[in-house]
Amino acid sequence: MKDFVFHNSTKLIFGKDKEQLVGQESVAYGKKLLLHYGGGSIKESGLYDRVVQSLHEQDIEVFELGGVKPNPRVSLVREGVSLCKEHNIDFILAVGGGSVIDSAKAIAAGAKYDGDVWDFFTGKSTVKDCLPIGVVLTIPAAGSESSDGTVITNEDGLYKRATGHITMRPKFAILNPVLTYTLPSYQTACGITDMMAHILERYFTNEKNVELTDRLCEAALKTIINNAHTVLEDPTNYDARAEIMWSGTIAHNDLLGTGRIGDWASHDIEHEISGIYDIAHGAGLAIVFPAWMKYVYKHDINRFAQFANRVWDVEIDLNNLEKTALAGIQKTEQFFSSIGMPVTLKEANIGEEHFEEMAKKGTERGPLGNFVKLYEDDLIQIFHLAK
Amino acid sequence: MKDFVFHNSTKLIFGKDKEQLVGQESVAYGKKLLLHYGGGSIKESGLYDRVVQSLHEQDIEVFELGGVKPNPRVSLVREGVSLCKEHNIDFILAVGGGSVIDSAKAIAAGAKYDGDVWDFFTGKSTVKDCLPIGVVLTIPAAGSESSDGTVITNEDGLYKRATGHITMRPKFAILNPVLTYTLPSYQTACGITDMMAHILERYFTNEKNVELTDRLCEAALKTIINNAHTVLEDPTNYDARAEIMWSGTIAHNDLLGTGRIGDWASHDIEHEISGIYDIAHGAGLAIVFPAWMKYVYKHDINRFAQFANRVWDVEIDLNNLEKTALAGIQKTEQFFSSIGMPVTLKEANIGEEHFEEMAKKGTERGPLGNFVKLYEDDLIQIFHLAK
Repeated sequence: MKDFVFHNSTKLIFGKDKEQLVGQESVAYGKKLLLHYGGGSIKESGLYDRVVQSLHEQDIEVFELGGVKPNPRVSLVREGVSLCKEHNIDFILAVGGGSVIDSAKAIAAGAKYDGDVWDFFTGKSTVKDCLPIGVVLTIPAAGSESSDGTVITNEDGLYKRATGHITMRPKFAILNPVLTYTLPSYQTACGITDMMAHILERYFTNEKNVELTDRLCEAALKTIINNAHTVLEDPTNYDARAEIMWSGTIAHNDLLGTGRIGDWASHDIEHEISGIYDIAHGAGLAIVFPAWMKYVYKHDINRFAQFANRVWDVEIDLNNLEKTALAGIQKTEQFFSSIGMPVTLKEANIGEEHFEEMAKKGTERGPLGNFVKLYEDDLIQIFHLAK
Repeated sequence: MKDFVFHNSTKLIFGKDKEQLVGQESVAYGKKLLLHYGGGSIKESGLYDRVVQSLHEQDIEVFELGGVKPNPRVSLVREGVSLCKEHNIDFILAVGGGSVIDSAKAIAAGAKYDGDVWDFFTGKSTVKDCLPIGVVLTIPAAGSESSDGTVITNEDGLYKRATGHITMRPKFAILNPVLTYTLPSYQTACGITDMMAHILERYFTNEKNVELTDRLCEAALKTIINNAHTVLEDPTNYDARAEIMWSGTIAHNDLLGTGRIGDWASHDIEHEISGIYDIAHGAGLAIVFPAWMKYVYKHDINRFAQFANRVWDVEIDLNNLEKTALAGIQKTEQFFSSIGMPVTLKEANIGEEHFEEMAKKGTERGPLGNFVKLYEDDLIQIFHLAK
């Protein structure tokens, strides 16, 4: 087990109607608030009205910036930064899913920085401080509601890049499973894939003697798998929605990564795909992860066999561990497919035309991954396995 | 799943030599520090010197109060409160195990209160604020290093009582598994029992649809069970010590109790025993828990069968779930016995002479437990099952 610091201070408020607490939770951080959100869905559902009412009850002055799109763009972030500086905003409230929260985090960092916010994503500068952020979560997926990282896309060159800092971690996150009832099936499935991917990235490590975190990862994966079809078939099932929502937060609040180094190549590879193609992050992960697994499993067949056995209930064949390992990979792929995800690039209408470009861009800052280091040619082979 | 708030802000610093960071972590909270500890073991091991040196390097003025005993006493807490008030202490550093941390928490609450600190334990007053606390953990067991509660014994009448408040949660806790190498086997086993008991108290709930927390509980229990004999047979095995230490914190940091109401009767019953008899908390729990299980299992045979299957690998006998449930209870009792714990009162040289007194005192503020409500007569029957 590696040394580590675990410090996740986000206050998680979980349950029905909890968005009514957003005003009293926010007011501790100031009276001038930027309300950040995506499209019109929160207005149609009435959530927007309830949030604004709760904020007004605390005499909070509300500034607004909507329009966040999936794979949030740096242009909107820059707009948010300007708004914050112009109006001396105290606090940013993100109402939405991972894209809105990530956009809010980038704004929060940019608001405390004199240069261009994209500097944080190129490595030209590092985040040192952020405006405080709060979250009302509507899409369980990214885990951004209690993580200290953000991923932003730069339209100029279609780069998708990540950065993070401890001050970026939301002060509070309100998680009401009822708010997820109206999510379309496809988006629900993308979220499920994303949270599973967050666990898988941590699960495949070279660190030995990480039994507790292995088992915690397996616990969360099994819970997600067991509840996935229920939420797709019965979208207003509170209990299943609650399991999925809570699992999505636990998947990415750092606990499952303590004492080990995760891989993260699949996320990076997916960022290259969704940086160019208009594909949801979860769908991209459903394509990349099985291909990545097929490419790297020989690096640690025991770990893949353990995964197959403990997560997918594949019986361990001691005389053929490779068979056990491969059965786990097959089950993973079949599961993603069963919840409506594409598992090949072809299913997502993505051809071979950018394989080399994506492989080149993806590795231009060095090889990807930690479980196995992947170079430009490895990425091309993984893209071919994902065809 | 019940609504909940999860907010655990303790910064956990885990790994070899991390006590060297105690000065720089403490100085953020002020320059006048009360160093609180137990007996001479931290002086013999050199830990005391390393801690004091790290504090002095940050120009922290160190006041001292040693002498904490297992089942920490309110008399020493009162002494600590006086010291804090007299010297305007900013910060309390607990170096030790659960008793030292609990004592420090009580001092931290008393230092911010005009009345007698025992008021918090009788219900006469409630904690509203505390001095900040930090921890260097030497005994993984109580989970007090990131919990918001404390248990103190009043010598006057031998009452053992609990209280808690969010401000009681330590600001940081330093967890170095190497510091646990010198723990005697018996104390190691007591710690293992205590952390397992913290999970079991949460596991036995009447709340339905708590799959994620069930599985997280099972993950932690299996990890503790798998590493227990290793640390007893090979006390300087870093990896096993690390699994046990990290599991002890996770067992009691509130995560495993989210969305459910735990039971806690066994802890309360044990407090009655160790309030009168000089028995370690863990040893008392090893006696009480199997007896409690035998007394209540019929209340939810399915849950006990799930426990037997998932934690102890007992095959589920669908035609005789009671047999499955009882096998899990037997395995629990055998396990405690196998690590050197007493599992009957007799083994701890405790007779029947105080059964009625303990049952009466234990229930004088109402029935115990939530899974099954236990009254005075129930406690007597449990004591008889534990004979």
